[in-house]
Amino acid sequence: MPAITVEGPPIPVDKKRRLVSGLWEVAKGVYDDIRPEAIVVLIKENEAENVGVGGELLADRRAKGAGQSGAGQKGG
Amino acid sequence: MPAITVEGPPIPVDKKRRLVSGLWEVAKGVYDDIRPEAIVVLIKENEAENVGVGGELLADRRAKGAGQSGAGQKGG
Amino acid sequence: MPAITVEGPPIPVDKKRRLVSGLWEVAKGVYDDIRPEAIVVLIKENEAENVGVGGELLADRRAKGAGQSGAGQKGG
Amino acid sequence: MPAITVEGPPIPVDKKRRLVSGLWEVAKGVYDDIRPEAIVVLIKENEAENVGVGGELLADRRAKGAGQSGAGQKGG
Amino acid sequence: MPAITVEGPPIPVDKKRRLVSGLWEVAKGVYDDIRPEAIVVLIKENEAENVGVGGELLADRRAKGAGQSGAGQKGG
Amino acid sequence: MPAITVEGPPIPVDKKRRLVSGLWEVAKGVYDDIRPEAIVVLIKENEAENVGVGGELLADRRAKGAGQSGAGQKGG
Repeated sequence: MPAITVEGPPIPVDKKRRLVSGLWEVAKGVYDDIRPEAIVVLIKENEAENVGVGGELLADRRAKGAGQSGAGQKGG
Repeated sequence: MPAITVEGPPIPVDKKRRLVSGLWEVAKGVYDDIRPEAIVVLIKENEAENVGVGGELLADRRAKGAGQSGAGQKGG
Repeated sequence: MPAITVEGPPIPVDKKRRLVSGLWEVAKGVYDDIRPEAIVVLIKENEAENVGVGGELLADRRAKGAGQSGAGQKGG
Repeated sequence: MPAITVEGPPIPVDKKRRLVSGLWEVAKGVYDDIRPEAIVVLIKENEAENVGVGGELLADRRAKGAGQSGAGQKGG
Repeated sequence: MPAITVEGPPIPVDKKRRLVSGLWEVAKGVYDDIRPEAIVVLIKENEAENVGVGGELLADRRAKGAGQSGAGQKGG
Repeated sequence: MPAITVEGPPIPVDKKRRLVSGLWEVAKGVYDDIRPEAIVVLIKENEAENVGVGGELLADRRAKGAGQSGAGQKGG
């Protein structure tokens, strides 16, 4: 401990590397009386079929092209 | 937030659709001062090999046919 | 199991009652091969000081009156 | 409830069996006013690519052979 | 990691001591290639007002004296 | 979503502010196709009595002055 859990969409390994490294830098600065080595990060990857936003599956929302307005997905 | 996480067995996508829609309807009625769009649902699917009930793996319990009495599994 | 965890703001007991009852109704309809009695709901109440939205504490966002536009908080 | 969640690396089914059985024995001794059948264990298996220790992915750490000193991995 | 989280009712400190010690013994036997010191246990105490079983708050169920039959509460 | 949950010891509000802001900066850089506003952070504060490290309550470990060597606590 501390343990940081990130629930997000699937991401490639290089983004995982940046995520883990970046979150750890922040956490060790804040929890500065704890051994940095003890800070653990868990990345949880959720398929769009297993996430609901605004009452809809993210998978359905994307299929409808409505993702950009409400699902937390940025438009192009 | 609010974030609703459901730990359950694997289910087909149409059940996920109903689950996400139904939970969201309930939650938006209760958290009525929060934007409904901000309510997120995460469905976590757990294999029977990764769930223990009453000290036994659900997978073992089912293999023994004991599921219907104690594992939260309804009889036929 | 299934276990439903709701991470949200503090709410009064009558809302907890409605939340638990409503989520359970939905879940027992979806997980219809599981004993309804085995469905558990956990309500987690998070103080605004312990929630970050868009990089800010919800407590700070509310103090600034910015809550209604972005924090998932509906305007009056 | 009680619900015990174990976040760890992937393990074979016989270890899951021992884990679930052992944790349940402990929990039913402690929560001795709760029906033992109501105690649930969830095993979550995390790939080394999804775990960060000390700011590094466990997968990278292992590839470098540094696992034994700091990642919670015992040396041979 | 591994990290073991226990969601249960409030318990006194001596039970927490037994819980943490017992769960750790089990976990270190199972995850035998991991440093035992790296195994962390988190105890989460949930008020009966924040737990729903069978669609009812545990607090309400207990007030009605129905706890012993269905809420995972053993009879006297 | 994404939702970042941090399980750690109690911290003052200014550290929460830094934690939320810092984690959010990292996460929005990694999840760069998601609206930054949709990234939520939850801070969970755990009393030393509710955390077990190496089979002991953190509270007991600290009382014994053993915290600095193994509990993830840095020496003074």
